[in-house]
Amino acid sequence: MKVAGRQYRTIWLEDDGWSVGIIDQTLLPHSFEVCRLTTVEDAARAIATMQVRGAPLIGATAAYGLCLALRADPSGSSLERAGQQLIATRPTAVNLRWAVAYMIEALRDPKVTSLGDGERVAAAYDLAAKLCDEDVAINQAIGTNGMRLIEMARSAKSDNAQPVQILTHCNAGWLATVDCGTALAPIYQAHDAGIAVHVWVDETRPRNQGFSLTAWELQQHGVPFTVITDNAGGLLMQRGAVDLCITGTDRTTAGGDVCNKIGTYLKALAAHDNGIPFYVALPSPTIDWTLHDGGAIPIEERDPGEVTHVSGRDEAGQLRRVALVSEGSPAANHAFDITPARLVTALVTERGVCAASREGLLGLFPERRDDVQEA
Amino acid sequence: MKVAGRQYRTIWLEDDGWSVGIIDQTLLPHSFEVCRLTTVEDAARAIATMQVRGAPLIGATAAYGLCLALRADPSGSSLERAGQQLIATRPTAVNLRWAVAYMIEALRDPKVTSLGDGERVAAAYDLAAKLCDEDVAINQAIGTNGMRLIEMARSAKSDNAQPVQILTHCNAGWLATVDCGTALAPIYQAHDAGIAVHVWVDETRPRNQGFSLTAWELQQHGVPFTVITDNAGGLLMQRGAVDLCITGTDRTTAGGDVCNKIGTYLKALAAHDNGIPFYVALPSPTIDWTLHDGGAIPIEERDPGEVTHVSGRDEAGQLRRVALVSEGSPAANHAFDITPARLVTALVTERGVCAASREGLLGLFPERRDDVQEA
Repeated sequence: MKVAGRQYRTIWLEDDGWSVGIIDQTLLPHSFEVCRLTTVEDAARAIATMQVRGAPLIGATAAYGLCLALRADPSGSSLERAGQQLIATRPTAVNLRWAVAYMIEALRDPKVTSLGDGERVAAAYDLAAKLCDEDVAINQAIGTNGMRLIEMARSAKSDNAQPVQILTHCNAGWLATVDCGTALAPIYQAHDAGIAVHVWVDETRPRNQGFSLTAWELQQHGVPFTVITDNAGGLLMQRGAVDLCITGTDRTTAGGDVCNKIGTYLKALAAHDNGIPFYVALPSPTIDWTLHDGGAIPIEERDPGEVTHVSGRDEAGQLRRVALVSEGSPAANHAFDITPARLVTALVTERGVCAASREGLLGLFPERRDDVQEA
Repeated sequence: MKVAGRQYRTIWLEDDGWSVGIIDQTLLPHSFEVCRLTTVEDAARAIATMQVRGAPLIGATAAYGLCLALRADPSGSSLERAGQQLIATRPTAVNLRWAVAYMIEALRDPKVTSLGDGERVAAAYDLAAKLCDEDVAINQAIGTNGMRLIEMARSAKSDNAQPVQILTHCNAGWLATVDCGTALAPIYQAHDAGIAVHVWVDETRPRNQGFSLTAWELQQHGVPFTVITDNAGGLLMQRGAVDLCITGTDRTTAGGDVCNKIGTYLKALAAHDNGIPFYVALPSPTIDWTLHDGGAIPIEERDPGEVTHVSGRDEAGQLRRVALVSEGSPAANHAFDITPARLVTALVTERGVCAASREGLLGLFPERRDDVQEA
């Protein structure tokens, strides 16, 4: 996607051919800065501090983190250690585990282990680049499949000259992926195809990814939007101001339960109560085929300071962190919740749209039948 | 209630016998300051800028506003004009209209209109003081009635040595009333009676009354609490960490539909989905007997700047307002939503606890039967 007219991905190989560039997402929307990762520690820190975030982008960053580890020490034990270090950064998103497993499995192939050190490192970089390109291709397909749902919503409107009203939570845009986004991919494609859309952007406290990232992305691309607090979506749905909801997910079980940013469940309840479709966009590496029940997904608990404080731009344009509560107020900070499959109208994957169920997912991914346990 | 050991109400007559003291609630929790209202304009501004807020306290402030207007100009037209001016400040809370009507009706009584100017003004002050005392008595009764529900929740716990876990949204504490609170009154009474309680305090964006006011109140009184984002309650309910929810209301219809701070509806949906009782505490002046359907309640739309910006205390202890979105991001700011009666387990009034329905309310307030239209 473009930033101020220049084409960017969220992660790239620098001109030196080995160090890795990222956008520092903790500074958006107030300033756009890129930074350079040169070690696996840099990559792990970028994930843990959420300079990079979003399930697919976390996976891509981990893949490049393994490359940086191998470049410093091309041994098998270095690879294992780096994998463990990266996986420990965020417990909920399944793409992180998936990307590390994908890289390690390929690099353990005898054809690769028999190479010289330099060639093995080069093979790792090739794999990471391939993983990134695959992410982009997957998201483009999600965009195409999801755009049909937006067209359906337009057809269903009594006045289809009015924009299709879409509510989203958190950021599942291009900043959450290598490029294109998951939940926002259909919105970008619809907008580019001339379908009038308008997006209600949830703030997404505590880290405000909706305000900081989704609103910024949409503004850069010229898609009409309005920012709202996380509390507002229910009233908007009651008043008929939302035609459909679409979010991303950090992990979706084989049974169709969706783990996504805290607050997603509340919006799904409101959509269900008001007869509004609630869609979840997901690349297949986000599916955890080993789990049926979303209740078994570990929920990351983060620094309470993210709840009690917030950062923003003061009148002088300076970034400041301010306290919202009196000193000594305890806070809890669970990062995700579970939206049960029964509240999800459909899942939007790179292979098509399906019911949020074992049968729905296996219909699109029949090769996974043996991985899935009976409910 | 006490602040730093000194007894306060939220509104009082100053020692001069005519000007009115209030706590400036826009500065909490960062600083505790009182200010003095000397004109009806002061009173209207204090309501509009939310130096005072909360349905019962808005009503009490309007009552004293009328006294200040009469003191400046004791004519009937002055009274009418002041009433209109005060009612125009906030469209949703019904107590404001109720308090103005209560005052004007009493002051139009021939026994009062036949008095001299000074005595009429004195009669107005007496009425306002009576209205305030009645509010306190009502809230104490709500506390007693609501405490039984907390005791029930304790009995229902498998381990009743554990605290009763209560979730609340916005501020319906003593700061929202003249004293004691509505939703928090049962919590204070339970805590004071030695029942272990713990309160999950919703932030309540955009104006953060949960963090600024409810957490501050509970902290002052020594009630255990944890602050959470508005997104978090659903997960906590999914995980069994909430035994009951209780909120206040700005207007409840004769049919039991509850208009309250934006986001209340989302919590009621989650409580219903998880089989958790959802209670609403309300003094009877908050009931709009003229309406059955909550959809007919006008929803106040406030300054979008409340959504795009937030105020807090910086590291130097200074209050600062920071922007959360990039410039030019449009925002919507609806202040209330409607929780349908079907999601409300019971209403807690000064006369007792009843079903959120016409039958339930009329069972406690039979004298209102003629005011209520058929559904």
